[in-house]
This record gives sequence, structure tokens and C-alpha cells, in this order.
Amino acid sequence: MLFMGLDVGGANTKAAVIDVTPGGIEVKTAREYFPVWTKSRRELPELLFRMRSLLCSGVEPDCVCVTMTAELSDAYETKREGVNHVLSSVEEAFSGIDVYVVNCTAKLLDVDEARRRYMEVAAANWPATGWMIGKIFKDCIFIDVGSTTTDIIPVRGGVPCPEGKSDVERLISGELVFTGVLRTNVSAIVSKVPLRGRMCRVSSEKFALTADVHLVLGHILEEDYTCETADGRGRDAYHSMARIARAVCADVEEISQDDVLKIARHVYLKQLEQVVEGLEQVSSRNPDIDTVITVGLGEDFLAKRAAENLGFTRIHSLKSMLGKKASENAPAVAAALMATEKKTRIDAEKILSEVRGI
Amino acid sequence: MLFMGLDVGGANTKAAVIDVTPGGIEVKTAREYFPVWTKSRRELPELLFRMRSLLCSGVEPDCVCVTMTAELSDAYETKREGVNHVLSSVEEAFSGIDVYVVNCTAKLLDVDEARRRYMEVAAANWPATGWMIGKIFKDCIFIDVGSTTTDIIPVRGGVPCPEGKSDVERLISGELVFTGVLRTNVSAIVSKVPLRGRMCRVSSEKFALTADVHLVLGHILEEDYTCETADGRGRDAYHSMARIARAVCADVEEISQDDVLKIARHVYLKQLEQVVEGLEQVSSRNPDIDTVITVGLGEDFLAKRAAENLGFTRIHSLKSMLGKKASENAPAVAAALMATEKKTRIDAEKILSEVRGI
Repeated sequence: MLFMGLDVGGANTKAAVIDVTPGGIEVKTAREYFPVWTKSRRELPELLFRMRSLLCSGVEPDCVCVTMTAELSDAYETKREGVNHVLSSVEEAFSGIDVYVVNCTAKLLDVDEARRRYMEVAAANWPATGWMIGKIFKDCIFIDVGSTTTDIIPVRGGVPCPEGKSDVERLISGELVFTGVLRTNVSAIVSKVPLRGRMCRVSSEKFALTADVHLVLGHILEEDYTCETADGRGRDAYHSMARIARAVCADVEEISQDDVLKIARHVYLKQLEQVVEGLEQVSSRNPDIDTVITVGLGEDFLAKRAAENLGFTRIHSLKSMLGKKASENAPAVAAALMATEKKTRIDAEKILSEVRGI
Repeated sequence: MLFMGLDVGGANTKAAVIDVTPGGIEVKTAREYFPVWTKSRRELPELLFRMRSLLCSGVEPDCVCVTMTAELSDAYETKREGVNHVLSSVEEAFSGIDVYVVNCTAKLLDVDEARRRYMEVAAANWPATGWMIGKIFKDCIFIDVGSTTTDIIPVRGGVPCPEGKSDVERLISGELVFTGVLRTNVSAIVSKVPLRGRMCRVSSEKFALTADVHLVLGHILEEDYTCETADGRGRDAYHSMARIARAVCADVEEISQDDVLKIARHVYLKQLEQVVEGLEQVSSRNPDIDTVITVGLGEDFLAKRAAENLGFTRIHSLKSMLGKKASENAPAVAAALMATEKKTRIDAEKILSEVRGI
């Protein structure tokens, strides 16, 4: 039996399938850079069908669970419109198959219910991740540093229990920090950077992204740099350096590689501060939780480091437990797990205990 | 006789002509939103020729002076490449006509010299403005708040004399603040905004621009909103409000018009702080200069306000002296004036005294 999870993001869409056979359980994931604001409405169902074909190889999945954050994209005038388009696209790509939608309390709604209660399913991918992590750690705070955003969510008794439910509430509560490993404009993180002993203002153009910063610092590999570059040029270190130089209105003929690395280092430290501040805020409401779970592309150099800076010693990596792909596509894997539990009698705990290194 | 000035920017290209006839002196300006990073190399000479046709109506200009900032655009890998492309485009559009290029000390170079000394002419539009203002006020600081950036330049004895010459040096010295009236991403100005009694983090996406902020606050009119909107929708107040709401990951069904206006007000105040800080830095090096000249689209609500906040009382508006268009296209008008002075015996002072309300 095949159970599918989808996490339809604004810039990246992630999918996972859990294949339950008498011989065992297998999990596969897929991810595609798909910036919805550059696409026509027709392309989303096509993308979803493509991911279905890729992961299910012609076999019809028994159930699909969906999480989404794409509704925030300015491709849509309102979240209502965005939620409805995502749901219609899923229905089209999975015609005749049971579809459920994860809401902000990690419950599954059917599609009609989800359309009516669209604010509950808008931006609700973190509840799926929280639900899954809650199967392994009853009480913890998980930090999921993705390509674009960071979720910092407390889990109690196995259930995600943030103060905020909507994006706005979570931006206020520190549970959502709009900073990520790849797509964040450097100018959204720093207003000045060190340069030859002085502090230099930065350009407010989209000249350099965090992907450039983390690439030149060796935090990510070229293969992790999955978004478009700011200038349309290569994802290699040379071009990343040139983009970072441009953030202070310079070029590589004007400032040195060492200057650029110092700028990158500063941006990284300021981004780390953003995550630390969010974690401080969340942790101050949950002083008894002493365990942090790191998730996502930025597990090691942002999530773990932030937890260490705040004195946490019980830090566990989802990547170490479930593998890199499960960590980087956690909401999709979690949604697939919810679909499996919904349709079978198999405990999610049991599946997770069988799954290592997806 | 016709003298033309060009200010080739990254996002906007501005042009001016000074028409000297026995009957008097006439000045005309033109401006086109032309984001070079979205255009092919072929289009810049075509744009320049279009502006020439528009302003010169078939008459061949006697001389053209050029300033540029477009070379910083990531359409070009290096400034050298950008300067050369701008100069080739000008030569093509003004074939057979004398072309001079303004450098960072407000001197005119011929095109070959400018190519060799490309770092002197890169981003050197403020020297032209400073030179022109120096004809009216010998000692002052001028603040030119444009669509994208703000120049804060001291003038002494009629000559611009900033500490920095290149963009990098000027970002360090406070003489260039990368903030503007239209194109600046709200997330480059604020990291948190007030919302219903709490502080809310903002998205780092390009969801809302300063044009949205200044439009809803009544600082600019729809006709001043000349750049593209972040979401491709209308430039009216309703859509600007929706974009500002999206900056805190909300939509207009979720937060009120009053919430949005409070956010806009906060962004404005933080942007004003950026200009104030630049002016403080420049003024602290020039404590004897007590006169501020305001220039550009943001004259009233940013430049003047910043000067007032720092206690300046001698504040003069270029718009009041030379008219709105001259203020908003000051480097192009100044370059045309330099061309006129270069080729005739007419003093720039005399022309400026004749020109009121371009």
C-alpha cells in the first residue's frame, strides 16, 4: 500500500511516499524548486502529477495528505484563494484518491472542510512535522531551518503546542522566523557589514542570497543550492563571491576574497542571531523543555548552533535519526506518515522505528 | 543649440535637454523605468535613442554629457563591463556627437578616457548634482532621495567634496544610503513592525516596497509610483495595503486597514532613521555647514524631515528653486548644464537663474 505526503511550498514543493509491503516499509522523497509566483495556475497540478508519477511509478496511492505554505505567495491575492487553488490542484492530480489536509492542530480535514476552514490549513506544514517528532520525543522544541523560513515549535506530550497558529501569530511569538538557508536576501538580515576595519552599509537590492553566504562558508554544497541565483549566473563559489561583493556595491576586481569571506561570516552570525532570538522567545515560554530537535537544511550550522548558544545540551538531529532527505522534507514525510496511520492500523511510532536513513 | 544630459540608472534612465536660443533658455526632462537587468544589451541604445528623439525632436544635440549608476546592476559581471556597455550604448545612440562622461570629481572625461578610468565614472551621478547645486549654494549638504538610493553630499566652495568616491566608500561614509522612495524592499528597512500591541517579525520575501508605504501614507501619488509592483498587481491604495499586509504574512481579510497604516508608518519612521543616520555621519565631518538642500522624489517627507530632526533650520528645496522635474532628475539636468557650459560661454549660474520651474 502506498501513502503519499505533499508539502506544497511557495518556492519548493516536497513529496514523500511510504510503501507498506509484507516485506517491510520503504520511504521515498522528492523535491522540486517550483516558485509558484512565476508559474501559471495550470502548472501546479502538472507538477503534483509529475511527483506522483515519480514516487508511485504508476501504482495508485491509497491516500494523500497535504500540507501547504504556498497560499502566502503573491501569486494569490488572498490566502483563501491560495488554499483553494492548492486543493484544486491536488484533487486534479489525485483524482479519485482520498485526500486529507493537515490543519494547525495536526488534525486531518477532508478537502471540503479544508476549503471552509482555510485559515486552519494555511501555512500548516509545521504541525505535521511536530506531530511526527512528537512520536519520538514527547517533550521538545524542534527547529526546522528550511530554504526560506525557520519554524521553532514546542512539542508537549507528543503534540505540537505553539502559542501562534497563523503565520502572523507565529511571527509575533518567535515560532516563525522568516530566515532560511538559501533564499533569504542578505539585505533582510544585515544593514551593515564589516569591511576593512569599518562598517559598510549594504545595498537593498536582491544582489546576494543566504545560499551564496553558506556556499562560500562551506555550510552547503553546490548541489544543495537548489534555488535560482540572484543574478542568474552560476552557483559556484566564484559567482557567489561576486554576488556577495555586489551586496556592498563592489565587484570582485574591487574587494578581495578575504573581504568577501568576512562579510559572509558576518551575515551568517547575524542570521544565527535571528534563530537564537526566536528560540529564546519560544524557550522562555517553555522553560521546562530541555530537549531540542534540529531539522532541515540548516540543522547543523543554524539550528544546532542556536541551541548550543542558548546552553541546550540535549540536542538531537532528525537527519541522524531519519536521514538527510527526511530532515529536509520533514513535513512531506510526516504527512505521508499521517496518511499511513489514517488508513492502516500501523502505529507511526512503529514505522519510524523501522525507518532509518530515508 | 541643444545640450543633452543623461543619467543612466539601474532601474530608471533620466534625460534632460537645455535648448539655448536667442529668445531664451528652455529645459526639458524625460524619465523611463528601464530595469537593465531585465533587458537585453540591444535595448539600452534603443532606449537612449528614443529619449533623444523625444527631447530633441529631430534636431541634433551639440553635446551630450553622461552620468551613470547602471554599471552596478547584476546585468553586468563587473563594473568595468557595465561602464563599457553604457558608454557603447551612448555612442551608438549619439553617433557623431561629442560625448563627455562625468567623473567622481565632477570633471568631464571623453569616452576613451572614461573607459580607461572606469572606476571614476562608475556611480558618478551625484558629482553632477553637487556641481549644479554648488552654483547656487557654495557651502551646503545636499540630500537627494531617489527611487532607490539616497545621496548625502557635502559641497564646499561650490564643489562637491565627499569623503567617499566609490559606492563602497560612500556606503561606509554615510554619503550613500541604499534606501529610496519607491523600490526598497520593506524587509531591508525593518525586521519587526508593530501589530496589535506586539512586535511582529516581517517576511524576507519581496512582498512590499517603499512605494506601497509612501502611497498609503499619502507621500506620493499613483503617478509617482513608476516602478513595477512586487506582485504585479495595481498601484492603487487597496493593492498597496494588500502588499504591506503580506509583509507580515497576512492578507486584507486578516488584518485591518488601520493595522496596515500603522505598519506603513513604522516603516516610514525607520526609513527616516536611515537618512537621519547618514546625515548625522556626514554632518559630523562637516560641522560648519549649516545649510541643507533637499533633492529628489523624497525631498519633503525624507530629506527635509531628516534635516529638521537634526536641527537644521536653513533647508532649501531644489524643487522650489528649479521645479519638480529638475529635482527628480537632478543628475540629468546637471549633466545637460555641464554640456552647455562646456560648449558655450554661458555660465551655469546664468542658466540656473533663468530657469525656474523646469
